[in-house]
Amino acid sequence: MTDTAPRPTLEAVAARAGVSRATVSRVVNGGDGVREPLVERVRRAVEELGYVPNQAARSLVTRRHDAVAVVVAEPETRVFADPFFALQLRGISKELTAHDNQLVLLLTEGRDDHARVGRYLAGGHVDGALVFSLHLDDPLPELIQRAGVPTVFGGRPGWSDGTTDVVYVDSDNRGGAREAVRHLVGLGRTRVAHITGALDQTSAADRLDGYRDVMGDADPELVVRGDFTPAGGERAMRELLDRCPDVDAVFAANDLTASGALRVLRERGRRVPEDVAVIGFDDMLPVAEQTDPLLTTVRQDIEEMGRLMARLLLRDLDRRSGGATPAGVVLPTTLIRRASA
Amino acid sequence: MTDTAPRPTLEAVAARAGVSRATVSRVVNGGDGVREPLVERVRRAVEELGYVPNQAARSLVTRRHDAVAVVVAEPETRVFADPFFALQLRGISKELTAHDNQLVLLLTEGRDDHARVGRYLAGGHVDGALVFSLHLDDPLPELIQRAGVPTVFGGRPGWSDGTTDVVYVDSDNRGGAREAVRHLVGLGRTRVAHITGALDQTSAADRLDGYRDVMGDADPELVVRGDFTPAGGERAMRELLDRCPDVDAVFAANDLTASGALRVLRERGRRVPEDVAVIGFDDMLPVAEQTDPLLTTVRQDIEEMGRLMARLLLRDLDRRSGGATPAGVVLPTTLIRRASA
Repeated sequence: MTDTAPRPTLEAVAARAGVSRATVSRVVNGGDGVREPLVERVRRAVEELGYVPNQAARSLVTRRHDAVAVVVAEPETRVFADPFFALQLRGISKELTAHDNQLVLLLTEGRDDHARVGRYLAGGHVDGALVFSLHLDDPLPELIQRAGVPTVFGGRPGWSDGTTDVVYVDSDNRGGAREAVRHLVGLGRTRVAHITGALDQTSAADRLDGYRDVMGDADPELVVRGDFTPAGGERAMRELLDRCPDVDAVFAANDLTASGALRVLRERGRRVPEDVAVIGFDDMLPVAEQTDPLLTTVRQDIEEMGRLMARLLLRDLDRRSGGATPAGVVLPTTLIRRASA
Repeated sequence: MTDTAPRPTLEAVAARAGVSRATVSRVVNGGDGVREPLVERVRRAVEELGYVPNQAARSLVTRRHDAVAVVVAEPETRVFADPFFALQLRGISKELTAHDNQLVLLLTEGRDDHARVGRYLAGGHVDGALVFSLHLDDPLPELIQRAGVPTVFGGRPGWSDGTTDVVYVDSDNRGGAREAVRHLVGLGRTRVAHITGALDQTSAADRLDGYRDVMGDADPELVVRGDFTPAGGERAMRELLDRCPDVDAVFAANDLTASGALRVLRERGRRVPEDVAVIGFDDMLPVAEQTDPLLTTVRQDIEEMGRLMARLLLRDLDRRSGGATPAGVVLPTTLIRRASA
């Protein structure tokens, strides 16, 4: 347990410096009104004793911890299995570190733990929170609101109408999906299917909307439900081939889903792109460059989304005095053409 | 920023309940000495206003946050790239969650950020810390000691003599290495090389010691430096083949290193295990089962190490009153024989 010798107290510093507790407290908290020779004496005593001020006490005065919580509303196993989160965290980490703020990642085993996360956020341990991968029926947003901690969301929250009091960073999911499906139609494909993401997330719902914008009157059998994972992509592709053996193109809700679909297509002897063209979403390396064939996909800048979330939050913390804050920020996407479509 | 309406204050609760601030404070902090009808009134006011007690204030009374920090002394990019850390975190997360403690992962861009981590640990935001992947010249242990926060280390810290005041969980690195090298010698190999891990970590130093226990008088050219990464394994294997073209066996410091070495051996047309037998360390899935050929390796139970670290810390927090705490806990390893040696 390292050395557990008792921590030097405020009282010990006061005794060493020959001043009152209140004076030590004022010096430690950077307050004014203490004469310079006394400040010097207190500083020396702090140094000599190796006194570390209790920040729980100090934060009652300064109200700033230079720490930001990050909450990914997924079980920790998914946080580490899906490179999407690592990329978003990379952007967040770079931005917070550049401003000497500590990244505090709150991990959970699942939704049952979100009440505990809410308690930690309410506990005055961080200045704000970055929250992503929200699902529709998640109690987290309400817990965050009650905690009263400034928050920026990654991805448009389902309840937001995009105009007020919720700040989020998102990609143009609907526009990107439209571009992907138009590309498939432009290749002359007529049985264009869509494997969705987790439909309790707005990113999945928006991509489905983009598919429907282009394929409005398509056979509803061509839409199968996935969950943004490779295993979900495999399951959905099997179901699709059983239901619609004449499918000639697939727009998958993300690259991981596409990688699962490609495996099943190969297993069933369908050539890509000759028999079935496939497009993903994310352009997540190394996934999109390790598929066989290389994956045509819709690029979104995931790391930049993380960086932007952190930047918006820090800016808000700096000018909490008031004034208008931006609502949603939506980044553009780009279609990356490789071999699969 | 979610709804940033002002948080209800203690004063507002007191006014609503028609009692003093002190009474509200005592009720909220679970203190005694308040008559039941008053307690009831305060509770109702808390409920009606949606008051969330400021835990920074409350923790000054209760001194427990039910939160444990985890610090991996590596840049966040490595934390997410090396599945070793995900496995250890999985064990930690399961154990902390089972005891309703929040896992607080403090991420950094590198060693320059460790002072900030030390400040967060000293700030009274967590009850204890789990720290792993320490390097010899890292200032973190001293910062932790000054923070006075109970800590369990993953891997024996370099300064520990294994007897006092430092609690750690480790695997029998030296014994496991001996078993691996003996297996190679038992196969009749005479030019057995070792690609080390990062030698500023005790796990790497102990495995090198285990190699030397068996190969004491071997050609020193057969020991090349790696860093526990696949890229380091590739570099080292190239150097080794240039220096000792007659090498017929390699004990790699971990599976990732072995996977890099295997790639170079294939590239240079050496057959494994016919020309060069290879053994790794960790038995980390999926790495060890995705190499070609499948990797013979020394298994350590990484997830169990994480679980045990968390268990030791929680037990210590529960009985901080004193009494002997264990020092080092060392888990056994097992040689797993597959195709590569």
